[in-house]
Amino acid sequence: MPYQTFDSAAAIAFAQSRGFLPQHAEVSCTEIGDGNLNLVFHLRAEGRGLIVKQALPYVRCVGESWPLTLDRARIEAETLLAHAKVAEPFVVKVLDFDPELYAMVQEDLSHLVLLRRRLIEGERVDGLSADLADYLAQSLYAYSDFALAGKEKKALVSQFSNPELCQITEDLFFTDPFREHERNDIFPATRPLAEELWQDVMLLDAVAELKARFLSCPQALLHGDVHSGSVFSGPGELKVIDAEFGFFGPMGFDVGSVIGNLLLAWCRHKCLGNQDYADWLEEECINFWQHFEDRFKTLLAGTEDLALASEGYQSRFINQVQKDALGYAGCELIRRTLGLAHVADIASLEGGQRTEAEKRALALGRSLILASQGTCDIGLVRRLLHPSPVRFAA
Amino acid sequence: MPYQTFDSAAAIAFAQSRGFLPQHAEVSCTEIGDGNLNLVFHLRAEGRGLIVKQALPYVRCVGESWPLTLDRARIEAETLLAHAKVAEPFVVKVLDFDPELYAMVQEDLSHLVLLRRRLIEGERVDGLSADLADYLAQSLYAYSDFALAGKEKKALVSQFSNPELCQITEDLFFTDPFREHERNDIFPATRPLAEELWQDVMLLDAVAELKARFLSCPQALLHGDVHSGSVFSGPGELKVIDAEFGFFGPMGFDVGSVIGNLLLAWCRHKCLGNQDYADWLEEECINFWQHFEDRFKTLLAGTEDLALASEGYQSRFINQVQKDALGYAGCELIRRTLGLAHVADIASLEGGQRTEAEKRALALGRSLILASQGTCDIGLVRRLLHPSPVRFAA
Repeated sequence: MPYQTFDSAAAIAFAQSRGFLPQHAEVSCTEIGDGNLNLVFHLRAEGRGLIVKQALPYVRCVGESWPLTLDRARIEAETLLAHAKVAEPFVVKVLDFDPELYAMVQEDLSHLVLLRRRLIEGERVDGLSADLADYLAQSLYAYSDFALAGKEKKALVSQFSNPELCQITEDLFFTDPFREHERNDIFPATRPLAEELWQDVMLLDAVAELKARFLSCPQALLHGDVHSGSVFSGPGELKVIDAEFGFFGPMGFDVGSVIGNLLLAWCRHKCLGNQDYADWLEEECINFWQHFEDRFKTLLAGTEDLALASEGYQSRFINQVQKDALGYAGCELIRRTLGLAHVADIASLEGGQRTEAEKRALALGRSLILASQGTCDIGLVRRLLHPSPVRFAA
Repeated sequence: MPYQTFDSAAAIAFAQSRGFLPQHAEVSCTEIGDGNLNLVFHLRAEGRGLIVKQALPYVRCVGESWPLTLDRARIEAETLLAHAKVAEPFVVKVLDFDPELYAMVQEDLSHLVLLRRRLIEGERVDGLSADLADYLAQSLYAYSDFALAGKEKKALVSQFSNPELCQITEDLFFTDPFREHERNDIFPATRPLAEELWQDVMLLDAVAELKARFLSCPQALLHGDVHSGSVFSGPGELKVIDAEFGFFGPMGFDVGSVIGNLLLAWCRHKCLGNQDYADWLEEECINFWQHFEDRFKTLLAGTEDLALASEGYQSRFINQVQKDALGYAGCELIRRTLGLAHVADIASLEGGQRTEAEKRALALGRSLILASQGTCDIGLVRRLLHPSPVRFAA
């Protein structure tokens, strides 16, 4: 069937034709897409729910003037299926995919809540850091040089070549926010800080290094956009969705996206005076890395590549992932403050509080990016969140 | 036409059908392939020469038990054409390519001599280091993130995905020579040194790092096998051939192959007592890097990527290419001594001289690989070739 944009009736007919709905059932359908790129229909029939998701040929929030490849629907379905193979509990189930309609059927997750909402509301999410760490450790390891033979990996790198979506990240994450650009969206009170940031030559050097690794370091099949709006959570459950940015890139990018989003929530709650919750976010950040590192090291011990089995190399590899993660977390903090796409954690704050939160996000982001180029580890996060006055010996 | 292996008559018919030979001319044809992977026919008619090169579906020197993709003929033709676009004077002309017969027509270079032969015979080759540096700087820059837009580069990375040939390098370059392996070919007198080398944990860590970068660092379209048997040379002329190992990898691999091959020749002449020629090789080695760095820096200044234009980043990038190059040069020295494929520079020496040359190659290779993991530059080569006794202050 040639591609055409679904309305509710078409979404229902699609799910029915694929055998996911009883033939004569009453079906309700609501379009719930709040992202920027897709139509998302929530179908309900006989007490059971389903999601039909279809890619639009343009960026939804901008309109038809910004065309975007439909192939991202294939990338999303294949990335989710690939990750589900090795980290099944943490990935939304893709039940079916139609490569001509660029539409897929997914399990209904409406009993869960977006992680970003929970973080904004100051809810402690049990097991959050461990689940995210397991998800990333298992899926990143399984599609790395440690686990795949050279031929197999190279075929996957081509299969998951995702130039158009990568370019969005290349531009919005690494280029625009670090200079004056029409796509930026800068809160007026924050502009002087932005202009100061753009003068920091060391920072720009470090961002270039991080961008270069994003471009040319296909370590593993990344989710590519694992921010807290791509994660659903509920009691004892965590599910990652929205993998259209999937591609082979540096592991630290996914790991850093998680850290960056926890720190964005931290900036919010710190400015709201919710110190206990801010402390919980800090702990989750550290726990997330520690858990990831432990799980990843365990998996590394099983590599069958004779050369890559060297322990010293593996330990340096993990250390580089950690440095990358801190750098990419820093970029996330800055691009969510100065770039096109803001997050409600900060953008929903009023006046002075927003200014204060953005100031924190920029300072934290800058320090993380600079630190990523030297010797650093996750403990840096703690030091940055609790700056103490410099003391000199008497 | 379905694939079949050419004999002389078929090679002539192929060139004729493509319009490269006069219809009724007398044509002479000699099979001159001395490599491991292909048939190479040298055709002559009416005083003009032509090369017809056809890929065999197996590794020639091993036989039909080691099958090998014919697709490498496409890779070779497309790599040579891509490099010729930006470094025309230094690349053999591909006049035609047939994707079904995996055969191509190339210009005749029989007026030139293989660089390895000149180096073995101790000839000084005018302009050698500058030509090789220009060839690599121009071709590596043009197919890097500095010069290509993200989409364009990602399409090329897939086009030049070369899993089977890369695997040969992954195995023979990085894995086998650093441990006991049936594919190794170790001169009896050298075996004790090999066994000592295999115990060096720091070395194995460094080799793992270099292998990982070979696997997952698509910085540019490499030649992939630019040893001195892939270079033809004559007065005022240098032509690179044999690009079937072309793929997107770390620039330092090609740069290091050149340095490694100059140093293999150095090991030969040092042991033969040809000190003047050894000194010339040393100078060429240093000049090659300096010239490459100068040329590459000039090209870098023209990048249109706003983020990658940062000067500090570019200087670190060049420095990393230099470190990689020294590391890969070290691997070349070791794999040509212990691995499957030796070079005549050393293997043609007799008894004690061969042992001495191999000892030098291993020591030099080891130092270069270890040094590549820290702070180092091309000056290291000079220090390694002229070890002076350690002096302590009185």
